[in-house]
Amino acid sequence: MTYCVGIKLNQGLVVLADTRTNAGVDNISKVKKLFTWQMPGDRCIVMATAGNLGITQAVISEINERLEVPNLNEPTIYSAATMFEVAQVVGETMRKVQNRFRASVIGSVDYEATILVAGQRVNGQLRMFQVYSDGNFIEATDDAPYFQLGEHKYGKPILDRVIAVDTDLQDGVICALLSMDSTIRSNLTVGMPLDLAVMRNHTLQFEQLRRIEADDQQFFEFSNAWSNALKDAFSEMRLMDV
Amino acid sequence: MTYCVGIKLNQGLVVLADTRTNAGVDNISKVKKLFTWQMPGDRCIVMATAGNLGITQAVISEINERLEVPNLNEPTIYSAATMFEVAQVVGETMRKVQNRFRASVIGSVDYEATILVAGQRVNGQLRMFQVYSDGNFIEATDDAPYFQLGEHKYGKPILDRVIAVDTDLQDGVICALLSMDSTIRSNLTVGMPLDLAVMRNHTLQFEQLRRIEADDQQFFEFSNAWSNALKDAFSEMRLMDV
Repeated sequence: MTYCVGIKLNQGLVVLADTRTNAGVDNISKVKKLFTWQMPGDRCIVMATAGNLGITQAVISEINERLEVPNLNEPTIYSAATMFEVAQVVGETMRKVQNRFRASVIGSVDYEATILVAGQRVNGQLRMFQVYSDGNFIEATDDAPYFQLGEHKYGKPILDRVIAVDTDLQDGVICALLSMDSTIRSNLTVGMPLDLAVMRNHTLQFEQLRRIEADDQQFFEFSNAWSNALKDAFSEMRLMDV
Repeated sequence: MTYCVGIKLNQGLVVLADTRTNAGVDNISKVKKLFTWQMPGDRCIVMATAGNLGITQAVISEINERLEVPNLNEPTIYSAATMFEVAQVVGETMRKVQNRFRASVIGSVDYEATILVAGQRVNGQLRMFQVYSDGNFIEATDDAPYFQLGEHKYGKPILDRVIAVDTDLQDGVICALLSMDSTIRSNLTVGMPLDLAVMRNHTLQFEQLRRIEADDQQFFEFSNAWSNALKDAFSEMRLMDV
């Protein structure tokens, strides 16, 4: 399993991903699922992946290969004119990779995969898409400004209560971390370390791009503070008639 | 879908169930899933059901039929000597009903069903069991004092943070209601009204046995207060370094 969350706010973008991958609960390991690309002053792109690792790694590799060895007939995420075209490149790459594997499916392996792709081009809007296994995709809107990939349920209530399109960017970071914290506590197949990318609107660069390790003292204190704040919130409920 | 939660504390028992049933999201209706039986001074039993409604209704009906027309060879939930035997009666009834349907399965209908059964006999301990489709069951322990049936994910974080076996009974009621509130907000197939049963240890009677209707003003205010308390808790997190 995996948990990734992407939040697209008026002020900017927050993408947070865990790094646990597993084939059964007795076969877990650590793998990066958050990837970024920057062309200074031109574009800034982040992707987060979930689902079949063979598929998602192949898609990311194909995207990078195409940047190194461009094919003049095919747009790349660097040549794409808009973020919509970037999403199309990701979708098309997904479709190709899926078709390659699907042609030779023998067992009952689940080849489902999802890729969150977000970013901004100079003079363009900040946009965020969720690309499905078939290469089709949906876009985040002002009414639904966040996407969750993988194990979404445990971490959804806090997003629903806090996130609106005009939420402050720093609040978006806090909320993404709290949503992840709840998920990690409840699902063994979602785990530390975490990869965080934060981009402020129109800056075309990442304000934050960091890994939060399992022994990160600051995150440990943050997580504890949330536990205590929730317990305090619960205590307040004792004053209510039920 | 369904959401039921049962919490077995040192001070007593809390069982809360929603009343929504659905066959697809375009076919929903209201059905009672919480059932109680009392023999004053002797025993006090509550059950909550989830899963295939044809199965769970048949099991509850069989249990009641057997009380009205006892078969001398078969124990009933009123003749059972202990709560463990009560759980066996429920498990055995589940097994019979499942076998009756399984023998004639044609399509791909999901006959999975789960029944939470809890209560106390005079001079006995308060006990809580979760009966599966095969009639086998597990029991709540001091380490794991709650069971969730149906859509368990959204409402689990608050239980994990608040509930321990020595939690105050009224806190258990509040926590069950908050767990339900989070679930209803996130899953359309879990819905009001709610049925609540509360039994204090060794009293052999229900301290509360009530339905909370969709327009219940008190629950509306309770739910709003929790939203506000969570927002306040979130605000506190702004003081943390992240």
